[in-house]
Amino acid sequence: MPALLTDNAHEPIVTLLERQLEEVAVLFERQLASDLTAVNALCRHVEQYRGKMLRPTLVLLSGLAASGDPCDGSALGEKHRVIAAVAEMIHMATLVHDDVLDDAEVRRRGATVNHLRGNETAVMLGDYLISNAFHLCSTAGDPAINLALGEVTNTLCEGELVQLHHRHDHSIDEATYLEIISRKTASLIGECCRLGAVLSDARPEVAEALRRFGRALGLAFQIQDDLLDITGDQAEVGKSLGKDLDKGKLTLPLIRHLAVADAHERARTLRLIERRDAAALRARLGACGAVESTRQAAIDHVAHAKDQLALLPESAATRLLGALADAIVTRRY
Amino acid sequence: MPALLTDNAHEPIVTLLERQLEEVAVLFERQLASDLTAVNALCRHVEQYRGKMLRPTLVLLSGLAASGDPCDGSALGEKHRVIAAVAEMIHMATLVHDDVLDDAEVRRRGATVNHLRGNETAVMLGDYLISNAFHLCSTAGDPAINLALGEVTNTLCEGELVQLHHRHDHSIDEATYLEIISRKTASLIGECCRLGAVLSDARPEVAEALRRFGRALGLAFQIQDDLLDITGDQAEVGKSLGKDLDKGKLTLPLIRHLAVADAHERARTLRLIERRDAAALRARLGACGAVESTRQAAIDHVAHAKDQLALLPESAATRLLGALADAIVTRRY
Repeated sequence: MPALLTDNAHEPIVTLLERQLEEVAVLFERQLASDLTAVNALCRHVEQYRGKMLRPTLVLLSGLAASGDPCDGSALGEKHRVIAAVAEMIHMATLVHDDVLDDAEVRRRGATVNHLRGNETAVMLGDYLISNAFHLCSTAGDPAINLALGEVTNTLCEGELVQLHHRHDHSIDEATYLEIISRKTASLIGECCRLGAVLSDARPEVAEALRRFGRALGLAFQIQDDLLDITGDQAEVGKSLGKDLDKGKLTLPLIRHLAVADAHERARTLRLIERRDAAALRARLGACGAVESTRQAAIDHVAHAKDQLALLPESAATRLLGALADAIVTRRY
Repeated sequence: MPALLTDNAHEPIVTLLERQLEEVAVLFERQLASDLTAVNALCRHVEQYRGKMLRPTLVLLSGLAASGDPCDGSALGEKHRVIAAVAEMIHMATLVHDDVLDDAEVRRRGATVNHLRGNETAVMLGDYLISNAFHLCSTAGDPAINLALGEVTNTLCEGELVQLHHRHDHSIDEATYLEIISRKTASLIGECCRLGAVLSDARPEVAEALRRFGRALGLAFQIQDDLLDITGDQAEVGKSLGKDLDKGKLTLPLIRHLAVADAHERARTLRLIERRDAAALRARLGACGAVESTRQAAIDHVAHAKDQLALLPESAATRLLGALADAIVTRRY
């Protein structure tokens, strides 16, 4: 069952999606099979990280939505599944390296690679995943796809680098935050949707609408992720929380709060940041309305995402994309 | 002046190579230009790492050698320069991540990125270089090149992962060491030579001979590198030395010594390893002949490399490839 779609479990398109995602998982595992046992053991571990499969789901659903084809799957070809697996592999590589960046110990309820095997192995394993993603992508034999995904991963890394540049920057503004999450998260998700459509021979305006859908959904997804890092329940979320605070990463609730706080309030909040007092900060951001306003920002991006779907013929696939967008902001994990 | 070729400075082909390498450097810098100042500053720093330009030199020289064309450069096209820049970018990414792995502080006489800006930035910058390498590679519009380079970077990462797996393994044998350096170093260098030839429309057996040349040269290069880590002079080499010992990486001199040492000698050497007593180990490996036998192994690989050149028409380019191979094992930096 694709996560975030449990409410739609009874729909035939979800069954189709499940079968396609299983094939994507086979491609994923086959690509990472190595003749070296030491490498295989690491890949088996990292495959447990596969969680929501959001990006592969979006490639496939966008492919279906763009073709107007509801449920027989004839609109999806091997290239859709290859690109779906590539997108998940790129995402997995960023997770492994993010965990190094964040010193995280837990990911999807399991120990992180860096925690188990050291930062060095985690760095190299992330590189191995990136390399395999590009290699798998090249098997599609289409230089335009390689170029598009190369551009997206450039953008993604730039987002991470700008984020690192602003560590411990207590004056970071909302525009910079949006620039960062737009690059590091929304760009890949947008491209997943666009490529899914392109591979279904969609008209350019349809592919572009799906790209905008994905970008807006990606922004909402990252805002919700950042919110869960502050307000979530670690057991429910299944990964280390409070990491943004630990690592001096200011996210939207704090940015919005500091933007309107008077000198006295600001000084109090900065003291809480310095002390890494997550509980007090959580209470403070809740009380001043910053949590609620951030939640609303995510909801607005979801609404903007769904507006784009109006440009596509209505189908089971577009309805499911809409449901997926809604689930992004109601999720608690 | 391409490093390692100072003895051939007067030859017209070296002047041609210099001009071509300048164009490669322009491609390299243009690819890394970002609209984000924080990213640009990091790339400027990392460009100082460009040292020997061994891999671009090999792409270009192999292209010339395969076409039998001596010195007018007409055999080299834009794709040669693109792939030359890509190979250097992949190499640079591995340097940046290796420095994280090794906790190195000095690289090419400058501070490493991890030392200056933290491991997190170094990890992300390495990713940015890998991503840009694949993106630049995709601009050549030839899926076969993408596929070949993707395979090589997979192999390269596998070599690094196996090496990490054998950290502090005092029983590692010579075959495993060769497997590691063959994957992590020789594979990319071999592919540089093969691709240079392929882009000059070489016959398959010529491209294959150049690949074997590159692989053997790569083995010699890595063995010499590992030797310099033990016997080199840090000021001359220009990077942190003794890192292999610090990180529990056993290289050929130690492996050969331990393979023949009796129980008493072995115990004494393991104590030196444990104490990280680089000076005593250096003396010991020199006295027992392991340094000399390792040097001979590198020389043998160079001889094997040069044997492959006999399959090509003799030209200024093949002579320079031979000179380059010789310089690999006489270099002191």
